[in-house]
Amino acid sequence: MKQIKLLVIIFTISITSLFGDEGMWTFNNPPYKLLKERYNFTPTKEWLEKIQLSSVRFNDGGSGSFISSTGLVLTNHHVALGQLQKMSSPEIDYVKVGFYANSNSKEIKCTDLELNVLISMENVTAKINSTVKSDMNPKDALEARKKIFASLEKESTEKTKLRSDIVTLYNGGEYWIYRYKKYTDVRLVFAPEQQIAFYGGDPDNFTFPRYDLDMTIFRIYENDKPLQSTNFLKWNSAGASENELVFVSGHPGSTNRLQTMAQFNFNRDYSYPARLKTFKVRIAALKKFSVLNPENARKAKEQIFSLENSLKASIGEYDGLKNPAITATKQKEENELRSRLSLQSELNSKYSSSWSDIEIAYKKLISRYNELFYRSLAGSTLASRGLTLVRYINETAKEDSKRFDGYHEAQLASLKMQLFSPAPIYSDMEEFVISARLNEIISVLGENDQFVKMVLKNKSIEQTAKALSTSELINPDFRKKLSDGGISALNKSTDPMIVLMREYDAMSREMITWQEENISSVVTPSGEKIGKALFAVYGSDKSPDATFTLRLAYGSVKGYPMNGTIAPYKTVYGGLFTRAMEFDNKGDFELPKNYWDKKNKINPYAPLNFVSSCDIIGGNSGSPVINANGEIVGLIFDGNIESLVGRFVYDDFANRAVSVHTGGMMEALKNIYDAKELVSEIEG
Amino acid sequence: MKQIKLLVIIFTISITSLFGDEGMWTFNNPPYKLLKERYNFTPTKEWLEKIQLSSVRFNDGGSGSFISSTGLVLTNHHVALGQLQKMSSPEIDYVKVGFYANSNSKEIKCTDLELNVLISMENVTAKINSTVKSDMNPKDALEARKKIFASLEKESTEKTKLRSDIVTLYNGGEYWIYRYKKYTDVRLVFAPEQQIAFYGGDPDNFTFPRYDLDMTIFRIYENDKPLQSTNFLKWNSAGASENELVFVSGHPGSTNRLQTMAQFNFNRDYSYPARLKTFKVRIAALKKFSVLNPENARKAKEQIFSLENSLKASIGEYDGLKNPAITATKQKEENELRSRLSLQSELNSKYSSSWSDIEIAYKKLISRYNELFYRSLAGSTLASRGLTLVRYINETAKEDSKRFDGYHEAQLASLKMQLFSPAPIYSDMEEFVISARLNEIISVLGENDQFVKMVLKNKSIEQTAKALSTSELINPDFRKKLSDGGISALNKSTDPMIVLMREYDAMSREMITWQEENISSVVTPSGEKIGKALFAVYGSDKSPDATFTLRLAYGSVKGYPMNGTIAPYKTVYGGLFTRAMEFDNKGDFELPKNYWDKKNKINPYAPLNFVSSCDIIGGNSGSPVINANGEIVGLIFDGNIESLVGRFVYDDFANRAVSVHTGGMMEALKNIYDAKELVSEIEG
Repeated sequence: MKQIKLLVIIFTISITSLFGDEGMWTFNNPPYKLLKERYNFTPTKEWLEKIQLSSVRFNDGGSGSFISSTGLVLTNHHVALGQLQKMSSPEIDYVKVGFYANSNSKEIKCTDLELNVLISMENVTAKINSTVKSDMNPKDALEARKKIFASLEKESTEKTKLRSDIVTLYNGGEYWIYRYKKYTDVRLVFAPEQQIAFYGGDPDNFTFPRYDLDMTIFRIYENDKPLQSTNFLKWNSAGASENELVFVSGHPGSTNRLQTMAQFNFNRDYSYPARLKTFKVRIAALKKFSVLNPENARKAKEQIFSLENSLKASIGEYDGLKNPAITATKQKEENELRSRLSLQSELNSKYSSSWSDIEIAYKKLISRYNELFYRSLAGSTLASRGLTLVRYINETAKEDSKRFDGYHEAQLASLKMQLFSPAPIYSDMEEFVISARLNEIISVLGENDQFVKMVLKNKSIEQTAKALSTSELINPDFRKKLSDGGISALNKSTDPMIVLMREYDAMSREMITWQEENISSVVTPSGEKIGKALFAVYGSDKSPDATFTLRLAYGSVKGYPMNGTIAPYKTVYGGLFTRAMEFDNKGDFELPKNYWDKKNKINPYAPLNFVSSCDIIGGNSGSPVINANGEIVGLIFDGNIESLVGRFVYDDFANRAVSVHTGGMMEALKNIYDAKELVSEIEG
Repeated sequence: MKQIKLLVIIFTISITSLFGDEGMWTFNNPPYKLLKERYNFTPTKEWLEKIQLSSVRFNDGGSGSFISSTGLVLTNHHVALGQLQKMSSPEIDYVKVGFYANSNSKEIKCTDLELNVLISMENVTAKINSTVKSDMNPKDALEARKKIFASLEKESTEKTKLRSDIVTLYNGGEYWIYRYKKYTDVRLVFAPEQQIAFYGGDPDNFTFPRYDLDMTIFRIYENDKPLQSTNFLKWNSAGASENELVFVSGHPGSTNRLQTMAQFNFNRDYSYPARLKTFKVRIAALKKFSVLNPENARKAKEQIFSLENSLKASIGEYDGLKNPAITATKQKEENELRSRLSLQSELNSKYSSSWSDIEIAYKKLISRYNELFYRSLAGSTLASRGLTLVRYINETAKEDSKRFDGYHEAQLASLKMQLFSPAPIYSDMEEFVISARLNEIISVLGENDQFVKMVLKNKSIEQTAKALSTSELINPDFRKKLSDGGISALNKSTDPMIVLMREYDAMSREMITWQEENISSVVTPSGEKIGKALFAVYGSDKSPDATFTLRLAYGSVKGYPMNGTIAPYKTVYGGLFTRAMEFDNKGDFELPKNYWDKKNKINPYAPLNFVSSCDIIGGNSGSPVINANGEIVGLIFDGNIESLVGRFVYDDFANRAVSVHTGGMMEALKNIYDAKELVSEIEG
């Protein structure tokens, strides 16, 4: 499970739902009351602070935690996968064979990994509300909001030297500055074979019972020395017992728990069908490329993995959207809120038009949806780098407040890291992806579409894909040089992708601006109003929707009803070998040879994975599972299939977070990988 | 999985469905064409005959097969359970501890088990159609049909000395006499502990992956000597490999694959809700009785097991009935048949009114449904024996053709065996069951209902249940004596249950007669017409609906998509220990101590259970799974949860039959039970 990066923005309204056990709580507003009532537990300030400072954000979509005083960071193998793949070469594939450095000197530095640790949070709601006035028209409000966001971020960054992001909670009910310590010297210490990290492959992904050692350990360096810190989670190999209270501290990406029916229906009828089709087209293209030779397979592996993961998650969500029972629940919630709102005339006059305003905006969105979704070379890394570079050069020539969102001064450091990353781009793979995307676009928009004509310029799809994939953008030095040359160098370039992106930039900006002016400018304030209406009606004991910022979830370790029977709360190593044997050790269920060789060293009773009712979603991958003593007892790596609909509705009946057990990790480090040095470092 | 004995007759129309891989084929019409097309296999006459004569019917709702030349019969533990329970006593509980006789002299004779082997089939369609004329009115046709059935059965029994039953296929498209050799001297050879036979208990029942050794071995005796026969299935411990063609020969109970929408809706809205409630009431009563002491628990165990099994199956079926997609499929099929029929005016004028005729009859049924369903002491063995005895005495005083159905001469032998069975009836348990049933009835019918008044006679529920449960009918000798005394002894009896049943008999007959005259007399011929219409439209390459007579199903050994991932085609012994360990060896997942003690003797790779796409249903329990060489490779004991809707629609996507693997049975017999003698007898 990995955070899904959406192809176009799905406009969401973050209203917390009214269901039982759910909640992704900010650290400044932990669920004291619920924890007291349900588990007779009250977290102390120190307990919360320790966990906050031990939690790590992987900016490309995951979480992690400090597990030693010497900078060791634990996350999932699938969160680390991109880095592992970038470190690999035709000579050595760390994804396949795994890695272990038994001394600091053997650790490998990541090419472009930025980790963040949340240091402080400041409530800036008043500052923003005094600038963005409630009587402004939507367009002016949007502009004002962008401006004050950029200025507050810049001011905070300069003052604190910390990465500073404005975080919008409760749809604008609250605004905060989150300040992060950034770490960019991150080195690989341990990774198992992907075959065991992702055991069961795509079939077992998003399911339970499960048998995955989905872990990777990095080490953070500062000034070329391992980071020394007292903020880490003490390792507890005994783990949590059945029904024990546990917590998850991590960075859930996004939830859409209480969209309006208009948005819900839009997702079901337009957004998801289009996304699913695009995923399938891209996977097919990469597989066509992969089968040609083993080197191609190695190049495409991570993207295929990531796309299949997104596809399976999206299918689960789409199934939820199509489920009449869930639709009925949604409709009922919306009706109830609106009907209760109608009893309070003052509130009603302020907020009641929001639903129809959103509905009208979505009708507009639908009228241009095909253009907005299909007019892009989505999936091509060259196209993405090209467009970013064109914009970067043009935007950084302007003063900060006039820049396109994403190119403000405070956002540049991370952007440049990605833009100039030395991570390889594969020209031959690009050709397959671009060609497949062009076919997909033309099948929907037709050959006479303005974008299609712009890309093809009367050439064939094959000729175009070939030409674009030869772009020099593949080379980080070329990107650097072009950037240094500024607007004049950019405008002189004859590189085919740069030429296309120079032309496309205007079209793309028009679409983004149109969306901002026609959709976001209505949907954002209306969503904000609905959020406020919800609070006015139901009170404030709710956690905000996920925003890929640090949250605390709680729950208990427990099995659930599954497929007519019950799923256990944990799995054991014996089950790993059983699953292999029941599939005759074939395909996705083949075990690494190492495991067969060392089978007798492994305790078949040792726990491997376990489930808890903690409320998580994509982005939480790599989060620590923590017991009431603040010790780490597990490593979140997935949700079960029943949890996928959790994007829209939290169902505590069968929604479970799936984790690697700390005891299971130790069992493997000791008896499979002979990682004595690492074991003694972790065990302190 | 066990055949579900319905509380009231559910009127069904047996029309074979049009779906892919399905089919429960009679041995006189095997699916030659399909087998040739799909598996390039053509069964020979000898192959079919050998399998037919090796197949055994357990008349109380199961199947079995001969597996040696010395009369050994293999079936499921859950099919044998009633017998095992009857053999047990407070001193020794064979259900709990299992049983193995290492010599003939140690085998234990069953109290009241009748096994049947199908010897011959004769098509009597012409004979019946010449008596039951198509221009008769429904009531006369019903009478005529009953009369000719009884006379043909009697004639055949006298001539052949074989049990002879009329079997109605294709809703009366064909009538056959099936002639069975009866065996009534059946002795227990081997049974494992129920804990391993039914491993995973109610949670794992009707699911897969599964780890059950659901087997029992009996031996048939003739003239006090083991039956000698060449008709048996050769044992093949290697089993079937993935994707291999296999067959199931057994006795599927009933399917309702193409009911009309009126019947489908009746089941969903009336029949299933009532049945589910009754199951729950009875289970609750038996559990209340069980918890009082271990001896009570032993007494109630088999009934609870059987009821929970029926409840889970019914919930699965009910879920199917409520599934909008399945309802839509049904409706589509019905619409298509009716619309294609309407194009052929001659057929249309003959058959087209059938759907509305059934709909009208079901409206009538609904108007009396509560009375029909609730006016009985269903669940009480004493009440059942009492009513049967009252009717037996009254009916056998009449000439055969005038008797109530079920009491014809040809049907008496089996009836008497049950009526006079020495199997224990527990007075204290009866009291709990009767009391719960009375509460249930009164909650629906009210205290002023005629039946309620008849039973209570102004006493309280508690007094009534207590009085009825003291009936001497508990004693087989009493039943025999009363029967020998004839009508006069019956009418003089002051036994409370006899007194009640004498009075109730008339009410019960009125309800049965009303159903026959108002419902069956319309539904049976209309169903027959719909069956004929289906054949006229779609041709005759269909297998008839199940009728608890011998059928051959085919399919292949294969896994299936499950719960977001895929289920393997087999499970192994390692998985049995894993499942125990993942539930901390607790509750339904505790393994018998014997298994832990002998864990190291068991090969963890040895197969235990496997699945195939063969089309089965309750009644098939205990059926052999047979390979193309006619060897036994498995023992059917369940269907997965996805197969439950198979009563109404066969879905070959995930519908799977679950079997014990022959290799798994050998592994246990050799290494757990040290059953050397039995092993060498089976292996020949």
